[in-house]
Amino acid sequence: MATLSDPTVIPVLGDNKAVATPFIKCLVRLIRGQDCYGSWKEKCDADLLAYFTVPEEKRCAIPIIGDPDPGVLWRLDMFYRAVGVSVEERSGLLISRTMEINHEGFGRVLFTTRRLVVLSKTLRDVHRFGFSTLRKLAKTGAKLVNDAARVIEAYPDVARA
Amino acid sequence: MATLSDPTVIPVLGDNKAVATPFIKCLVRLIRGQDCYGSWKEKCDADLLAYFTVPEEKRCAIPIIGDPDPGVLWRLDMFYRAVGVSVEERSGLLISRTMEINHEGFGRVLFTTRRLVVLSKTLRDVHRFGFSTLRKLAKTGAKLVNDAARVIEAYPDVARA
Repeated sequence: MATLSDPTVIPVLGDNKAVATPFIKCLVRLIRGQDCYGSWKEKCDADLLAYFTVPEEKRCAIPIIGDPDPGVLWRLDMFYRAVGVSVEERSGLLISRTMEINHEGFGRVLFTTRRLVVLSKTLRDVHRFGFSTLRKLAKTGAKLVNDAARVIEAYPDVARA
Repeated sequence: MATLSDPTVIPVLGDNKAVATPFIKCLVRLIRGQDCYGSWKEKCDADLLAYFTVPEEKRCAIPIIGDPDPGVLWRLDMFYRAVGVSVEERSGLLISRTMEINHEGFGRVLFTTRRLVVLSKTLRDVHRFGFSTLRKLAKTGAKLVNDAARVIEAYPDVARA
């Protein structure tokens, strides 16, 4: 819960269009699902999403080598959860995610359904995970979901094997 | 390296037939590959493999709930590495492994090649990982390799997609 309590993060305004995309809506739903005590009830969606954006100058200030902290791992988990759920919604198939990250923030995330590898991403520099704008977050997520949907379309039998 | 220095482990004798199987030979080769300083040069294969066997009464003495230590994680890694390498040798394809284990020893190991999930195993009670006999170790390994080879045969196009 400490993840969203950093007072130095400024909400990104004027990105209402990005907030309305299906991927972002799914991400917000998943974030709100973690709010067991209702402490983020007063926060608007843009406030919650602001923690996923890292402005360019802020990212430059983060050392190149560093171990990811629990906060950034939580955000990474949330982002890829949203990707998985969006792919499930789109395809109607059960997607399982396997994520392997070492303590230095390098690894891999795999989305599979039955015998098919739906999506495979190499993770690196996880301690600097974040998007420069909210629009970029929406775009990256939507791209991953589209790629996965295309793979499922290409191998329908394997996805249902 | 401390993994193989436990003096309480008694080498399993009379299992020469099991040691001669291709899977065990592959496992021994991988273990010897980690011996950078030649400290296991004097040890025979059965000595090295003895650490993978946990007799029934010894396993019963391990608590049901427990966190896996680095030694057991190293052995788990070695075992699944041997599975991966054996599948590669058999199929001539490049296999990649993604393993996700939480600190309590529950997780999943996935072997994939291109778009195909070759093998998927749920991991549980990893802190008690081990086989009652060397023969069982050989049999389990060979079964996993055979299963994977069968999947590759069933979906040859996806494995080369």
